[in-house]
Amino acid sequence: MSILVVGSVAFDDVTSPSGSMQNILGGAATYFALAASYFTKVRVVAVVGEDFGAEQEQVFHQHGIDTRGLERAKGKTFRWGGSYTDNLNEAKTNFTDLNVFETFQPRIPKEYEDTEFLFLANIQPTLQADVRRKMSRVRLTGCDTMNYWIKGALKELQETLKLVNVLLINDTEAKMLANETNLPRAANKVLAMGPQALVIKHGEYGATIFFREGAFGIGRHPFRAPTLPIDEVKDPTGAGDSFAGGFMGYLASQEELSREVLKRALFYGGVMGSFAVERFGTERLQSLTREEIDERFQIFRELTHLE
Amino acid sequence: MSILVVGSVAFDDVTSPSGSMQNILGGAATYFALAASYFTKVRVVAVVGEDFGAEQEQVFHQHGIDTRGLERAKGKTFRWGGSYTDNLNEAKTNFTDLNVFETFQPRIPKEYEDTEFLFLANIQPTLQADVRRKMSRVRLTGCDTMNYWIKGALKELQETLKLVNVLLINDTEAKMLANETNLPRAANKVLAMGPQALVIKHGEYGATIFFREGAFGIGRHPFRAPTLPIDEVKDPTGAGDSFAGGFMGYLASQEELSREVLKRALFYGGVMGSFAVERFGTERLQSLTREEIDERFQIFRELTHLE
Repeated sequence: MSILVVGSVAFDDVTSPSGSMQNILGGAATYFALAASYFTKVRVVAVVGEDFGAEQEQVFHQHGIDTRGLERAKGKTFRWGGSYTDNLNEAKTNFTDLNVFETFQPRIPKEYEDTEFLFLANIQPTLQADVRRKMSRVRLTGCDTMNYWIKGALKELQETLKLVNVLLINDTEAKMLANETNLPRAANKVLAMGPQALVIKHGEYGATIFFREGAFGIGRHPFRAPTLPIDEVKDPTGAGDSFAGGFMGYLASQEELSREVLKRALFYGGVMGSFAVERFGTERLQSLTREEIDERFQIFRELTHLE
Repeated sequence: MSILVVGSVAFDDVTSPSGSMQNILGGAATYFALAASYFTKVRVVAVVGEDFGAEQEQVFHQHGIDTRGLERAKGKTFRWGGSYTDNLNEAKTNFTDLNVFETFQPRIPKEYEDTEFLFLANIQPTLQADVRRKMSRVRLTGCDTMNYWIKGALKELQETLKLVNVLLINDTEAKMLANETNLPRAANKVLAMGPQALVIKHGEYGATIFFREGAFGIGRHPFRAPTLPIDEVKDPTGAGDSFAGGFMGYLASQEELSREVLKRALFYGGVMGSFAVERFGTERLQSLTREEIDERFQIFRELTHLE
């Protein structure tokens, strides 16, 4: 089945303890699309500027990603610059030039209307809700957000959360959204806002999925997937979006949403996130094979598997 | 097989968001001994003062813990007071009255000399090394330490680490000991100091065990055990010692140290830590059954288990 991602495509400048790269292809939709492309057919709705050339578009096409929803606007592509010091979990933003992204109004091509899986990457919550409402044949919607919207557009975000099936955020965001420091309690409060499932990402410790009573008919018990301890994290940018791409991409590749499928999806999320951070930008995500992905899936499985 | 723990017995005053308790039985050796007592025969070497009465000793005896190594000294028992706010991972120490613990010189009763498993709870590293050297029939030694010794007695600690098989510390301590921010790299540096295995505890995210090449003949791949997300952590005091008690106690109950046994031990560590924090002090550890422990073991297993 196909999956549509709506979000940002960007050029990033990234500095980490491992080095520095300028002008590299980034953006939530890019990381998500590349990660999901190893599992299923991916479609993108995003906006780019005149500086986005054939070379960049080629990256999408090489992975069979449908870019008919990639709008070209006058001006420059969204640009972000960030630095990581020893705490690789948190980027210091050096600059954010929204450029053409500032007035982004997602337009869904007619050919995308039959899409069954939707991922609303981190954009203004009202835009997320608008997209969801337009996609009448969607079976499952995933959604991301960030502190900026939790603080500045909470009401709008709460409206959006009523329309989505799975919210994927990190510990800090979950606690902030629920106004609650205990994680399971925070999870329950967030689930009460609408989503049937909540994936909380713990960075290097993996992720936990919490379910609302009756969600997907699979029982309430949470499930945890680990991540591989990695010797060198070169660039954490896009790890969360790659996680979402692996998670949602795997779901979209499956016939039904059983508990086992959701568990495997959480593992695949961790796998794609762990690949993303091994090199700068999307480099590692561009060069993977499904065999490498499944090999790492087995390593992750072994990491916690009791006979 | 029997296990000997050498460490502190204390009276604690604890304040957490769930309430406040004064004068409750605590100390690393106490938490460890109670947790381990559900798996194997436990012996204790510690010092207490004149305020330690029959009521307290009874807690040990009710769990079949051998207290012939519990020295009674003139003066008061070690007392500690701490508070937890929203970040339950870190206690604010309100007071530390070492009292009789200040001049603690562990004396090993003759009857303990055949002990095969040893746990050196968090005490001065030179004392830890002395105890280890006295115990000639020990097959496996576990060890804890803390920031205070890493900063203030690093050389002594490094000598001790040459004598132990498994070191159990948390993320912050591992990074500080290795002077390294990346966890797997920190683990490798610590393993190079002596221990064959290193258990790094991640608080609410579980724990990872790293192995030195060739350790126990079981391969190098790390293993991760999760912990259950808990709705209400009443009192995190002693969680790490209870973890160690579950881990070491289970090891001591097994015939051989296979990879599978070490994996299960890590899960049992998480299980005992998760029980400890559910009530103030050692209350929950005092009232458990092996059935409850194995039930939670299954829940932890299910938490990450893929078919």
